[in-house]
Amino acid sequence: MQTLHHFQTQFEHHLKDHLFHQPPAELYAPANYILQLGGKRLRPAMLMLGYYLFREDVEKSLPAALAIEVFHNFTLVHDDIMDAAPLRRGHPTVHQKYNTNTGILSGDVMLAQAYNCLLQLEATDALVRSLTTIFTQTAIEVCQGQQLDMNFENRQDVTIEEYLKMIELKTSVLVAAALKMGALLAGATPTDAQHLYEFGRHLGLAFQLQDDLLDTFGDAGKFGKKAGGDICQNKKTYLYLKALEIADPGLKKELENWYISPTHTNAADEKIRRITQIFQKLHIGEITENLKEKYQRQAIVHLDKVSAPTDKKKMLENFATLLMNREL
Amino acid sequence: MQTLHHFQTQFEHHLKDHLFHQPPAELYAPANYILQLGGKRLRPAMLMLGYYLFREDVEKSLPAALAIEVFHNFTLVHDDIMDAAPLRRGHPTVHQKYNTNTGILSGDVMLAQAYNCLLQLEATDALVRSLTTIFTQTAIEVCQGQQLDMNFENRQDVTIEEYLKMIELKTSVLVAAALKMGALLAGATPTDAQHLYEFGRHLGLAFQLQDDLLDTFGDAGKFGKKAGGDICQNKKTYLYLKALEIADPGLKKELENWYISPTHTNAADEKIRRITQIFQKLHIGEITENLKEKYQRQAIVHLDKVSAPTDKKKMLENFATLLMNREL
Repeated sequence: MQTLHHFQTQFEHHLKDHLFHQPPAELYAPANYILQLGGKRLRPAMLMLGYYLFREDVEKSLPAALAIEVFHNFTLVHDDIMDAAPLRRGHPTVHQKYNTNTGILSGDVMLAQAYNCLLQLEATDALVRSLTTIFTQTAIEVCQGQQLDMNFENRQDVTIEEYLKMIELKTSVLVAAALKMGALLAGATPTDAQHLYEFGRHLGLAFQLQDDLLDTFGDAGKFGKKAGGDICQNKKTYLYLKALEIADPGLKKELENWYISPTHTNAADEKIRRITQIFQKLHIGEITENLKEKYQRQAIVHLDKVSAPTDKKKMLENFATLLMNREL
Repeated sequence: MQTLHHFQTQFEHHLKDHLFHQPPAELYAPANYILQLGGKRLRPAMLMLGYYLFREDVEKSLPAALAIEVFHNFTLVHDDIMDAAPLRRGHPTVHQKYNTNTGILSGDVMLAQAYNCLLQLEATDALVRSLTTIFTQTAIEVCQGQQLDMNFENRQDVTIEEYLKMIELKTSVLVAAALKMGALLAGATPTDAQHLYEFGRHLGLAFQLQDDLLDTFGDAGKFGKKAGGDICQNKKTYLYLKALEIADPGLKKELENWYISPTHTNAADEKIRRITQIFQKLHIGEITENLKEKYQRQAIVHLDKVSAPTDKKKMLENFATLLMNREL
């Protein structure tokens, strides 16, 4: 039985051997830079896991896993430009280290190169078309999710339903697609592949809610960043939207007032303290935890329906648990 | 016998019926905006012509033609951001009308949507994989060409060979790929499709040299823009690079000095006058014209080798002539 760690290491080696070495260097150096900034390689590992459920020769899934990772890094490069983010994983972002034009163009070529990985797969034309179609649909959805995220910054009437749709598009569908593509590449039936997609989609939603929880209630020492980042940025997370929904008119007004203007540096601690207090008073932590667990249970229901060896499925279930405990 | 104008009109109708209507509107409005700014639709018409050489039911090629036009417009949106261009076809560029983030993200989704057009084609999986592979290779090359173009701005040692490679990647390969994809979709043999590719590649090179010539020696009244734009921008065109190559040391030094610093508005006319004079003294117009005609002849050699009805091939030849006379 393989471990997730094994897949991550196997992918890391494959990536190292498949960086871009063709000219022009100015175009591909930024791509290689972001690809080597690290990260947990969870999405390519998911593709490999999806494959491993049905076949043992996991090395055959590496080129498709690479496509997923190159695509993911393309979205990071362009998102960092849009967010004007100076740092990514503790290092300068691509547009910061090079420049914005380089970031745009390197991102573009990474998207095309991700397609190149898929089109070169040693697989039937029908399978390649099918995988490339899922990949394209996912790429479109990820762009749509990013647009919704940007829209929400300027809207005061975002609903919880809209927020959940946005995180589904921006985060979950790529995890879901990676699992499904891996399964199909290994010859899984469409039904099994779709159950894995749904497993990944629900897991992605649970993961994002966990992320929102940690940002507000997380232990800074354990998770490496100060709590309250989302609050300072007035991010309309599930926590905030749920609080608005259940707060009495007075508290609702106070919440809205805090989120109406940019956070002043010297008022940040007070703002974080007060909003966290309101969230606690309204039991937002428990409510979010409950929804997260509901998504986790739904994920497992789909996993149970997949016709694959129980011990291999157990590995995916353990992975889901690890992800939620953030031991990874 | 169809005319090029007929294909352009047919494509225009297809485009109008296939604009993006899905949400989020903020993502797709900029895409629809640039797609409706006009333009001659030469690239999709080329794809249709490539198809028409081998089959009559040209309407079947429209979705692939749409992929080419959506891709081309994606490159316009991102190039305009990189060039900080305020206008495109006399209207505000996408990033100017909306904003840079919108331009980046709408461009990204256009690239994915172009793939979507290809993957949905009513064609065998083998053919779709083949077309998508050519398209991907072309997308990668266009990005590489754009990077070379940006590199050349800061380099004083650009060779003529490098310049020709850059315009081939940035301009010619898409015209070539459009013709080849149309031919393959219509069932042409790989040999015929490749001869069309070479026809398009040489035609694209001739077209770009024509463009360089017109920019310096063109009739402002006839072509709608003042001559000398490239000179003012210190663009290292074929004209400039050839002049550097054949000028005596004194003249070479003068040319380099003119191109060393940005053009001051009140010195622009004098700079254009003097450089044009140097070009004329060195017979750069005739030399460029000769190379252009060499490429045109090479294009026709490849067209002659294509096994298709002579009258249909004549249409492509006429198109090439029209393109060079800029009557389109």
